[in-house]
Amino acid sequence: MQFTVEEAMEVLERTPRTLQYFLSGLSDSWLQSNEGEGTWNPSQVVGHLIEGEKNDWISRMEIILKEGENKVFPPFDRQAHLTEPEKPLDQKLEIFQELRAENIRKLKSYLNEESQLELTGQHPEFGQVTLRELLSTWVVHDLTHIAQIVRVMAERYRQDVGPWKAYLGILNRK
Amino acid sequence: MQFTVEEAMEVLERTPRTLQYFLSGLSDSWLQSNEGEGTWNPSQVVGHLIEGEKNDWISRMEIILKEGENKVFPPFDRQAHLTEPEKPLDQKLEIFQELRAENIRKLKSYLNEESQLELTGQHPEFGQVTLRELLSTWVVHDLTHIAQIVRVMAERYRQDVGPWKAYLGILNRK
Repeated sequence: MQFTVEEAMEVLERTPRTLQYFLSGLSDSWLQSNEGEGTWNPSQVVGHLIEGEKNDWISRMEIILKEGENKVFPPFDRQAHLTEPEKPLDQKLEIFQELRAENIRKLKSYLNEESQLELTGQHPEFGQVTLRELLSTWVVHDLTHIAQIVRVMAERYRQDVGPWKAYLGILNRK
Repeated sequence: MQFTVEEAMEVLERTPRTLQYFLSGLSDSWLQSNEGEGTWNPSQVVGHLIEGEKNDWISRMEIILKEGENKVFPPFDRQAHLTEPEKPLDQKLEIFQELRAENIRKLKSYLNEESQLELTGQHPEFGQVTLRELLSTWVVHDLTHIAQIVRVMAERYRQDVGPWKAYLGILNRK
């Protein structure tokens, strides 16, 4: 196992501003493109990250710490952001940043000793999970959605790159 | 075809500072991890991006514009950065930023009309390629290496996430 709270926070605290720097000011042709029907564009991915801050990571941590090992987490709706009224990207990036900062403050205040990482809760599909698994997943979830955003953007140039497609791993994964 | 010079530059100009924001200050455990023997860590990926600025994109554009359609590009050594003396990451990020800014200046000064995008050169493996394909590839190359960096980092927590691995696409691709 590799997870430590300190290293996890290094990533968690960088993700919002990284996305803000990378995405803010891009043309809509980049921000509104997706990988086909039923897939998300970069702006929708940010909406999904906001939902996670509101209803997933810290909420489930609170259930583990306050309600104990037998309480089943409410399911997290991975499509919820698609039914929200659409906001401008810069506004979403700001909301993500604020919620993340607040959640990192909560994470720091809740965690007092290493042994808490072994506390467990009940995932609606997976059954017993540990706090360590939940927090590790929060980090990898950031990373998977950064990867998704750049993959979606790369897709726009699939034809344009011509024969170089063979060298560009990002065009050979889904 | 989707490529336009203006949109391509939006991405090209953002990549160095995005990586700087995301990577600078991370623990060595993140920066020195890789996906196994023969794979690159995030710091080495930045080294490879620097090589591209020095010897690939603009150099090949200059060959197309100045030496015409029959000159074969010198091969680009995709391992060259591994034999360079190792520099601190922050220094590499600064070098990448400076070279990229200079190359974007050159790109702007060289491109005067749309029809130049159809000019061709000879790739050592692929044969005839267009300037449009070369410049599109420059953009997707940035995106593929951002995706690589976050994938390498995610790999560290492959075991830590427990059953959530099933939901994390980044752990199910190579």
